[in-house]
Amino acid sequence: MSNLTDELEASIRTIKDYPKPGILFRDITTLLGQPRAFRRAVDELVHPYAGQQISKIAGIEARGFILGGAMAHQLSAGFVPIRKKGKLPHETVRVAYSLEYGVDEMEMHKDAVKEGESVILVDDLIATGGTAEGAVKLLRQMGANIVAACFVIDLPDLGGRRKLEDLGVQVRTLIEYPGH
Amino acid sequence: MSNLTDELEASIRTIKDYPKPGILFRDITTLLGQPRAFRRAVDELVHPYAGQQISKIAGIEARGFILGGAMAHQLSAGFVPIRKKGKLPHETVRVAYSLEYGVDEMEMHKDAVKEGESVILVDDLIATGGTAEGAVKLLRQMGANIVAACFVIDLPDLGGRRKLEDLGVQVRTLIEYPGH
Repeated sequence: MSNLTDELEASIRTIKDYPKPGILFRDITTLLGQPRAFRRAVDELVHPYAGQQISKIAGIEARGFILGGAMAHQLSAGFVPIRKKGKLPHETVRVAYSLEYGVDEMEMHKDAVKEGESVILVDDLIATGGTAEGAVKLLRQMGANIVAACFVIDLPDLGGRRKLEDLGVQVRTLIEYPGH
Repeated sequence: MSNLTDELEASIRTIKDYPKPGILFRDITTLLGQPRAFRRAVDELVHPYAGQQISKIAGIEARGFILGGAMAHQLSAGFVPIRKKGKLPHETVRVAYSLEYGVDEMEMHKDAVKEGESVILVDDLIATGGTAEGAVKLLRQMGANIVAACFVIDLPDLGGRRKLEDLGVQVRTLIEYPGH
């Protein structure tokens, strides 16, 4: 597995100046589109938890849904969507989270996780960690035991990983892009 | 497997008068959240294609991402996101599709599928079929061979299945709610 990082990195497309000048956008759609890279990324994310009783995978809209659906199926867990506000049809808990400019809100169904359930949180990428921090708050508000937060890509200089670890969340990532 | 339909139906939550009076909303999040129901739904959707060379699963944003991620992993296929306009970072093809009132646009990366690739399209539900029809157009524009379009739920009275079949697309659904 020593060349997994290389293989995954090679499958990711970097787009310069997207969504605005000076940003290097890490486009994971090219990883998702390659059967072997997608399969290896999912398998690597789930393998430490195969022996554990993971009750739910909570995926952050929208790319976290793709990875999370595969992880939930592979671990025989349920899947919980964490969505932008106004998109879930039943009673929700809601939290504000920080964006680069201003704030937005995200929601989760109140009955999506039960007190004490073991949950893994997943998204494609962690940068400043604002979105993931909001998701952690929602899950803990409903009493979830967050076993880990998983991301394919970490932009470590933006501090998101540290933010989650300071909240006591174990973070698992597959690729780092330092100097971002 | 004869009671699969019953089990899946029992796992779906019906919400009255959502998003507006007179609508019975079929909420699939309760199916996704139950490990056994989610696993059985995904396994049932993919099993006819296990022996075939399926190159890509194309999922429609957002709930199609959850099912599609699991299906792609299970079939060792790649995953292709079909998204609302303005969300994909690279060069796209775009198509207008009909909503209840007016139209919107959806996009797919131009290099997401290659000429002749075998693709399965997936979303959680088919109603009027406007979204699925748009997705079929995008995939065919790039030369994809659409092996099937899969949905957990069919609302047959709204005509979407028929619309896809008239386009020559084989449709596979797990649950029907007639009289909608």
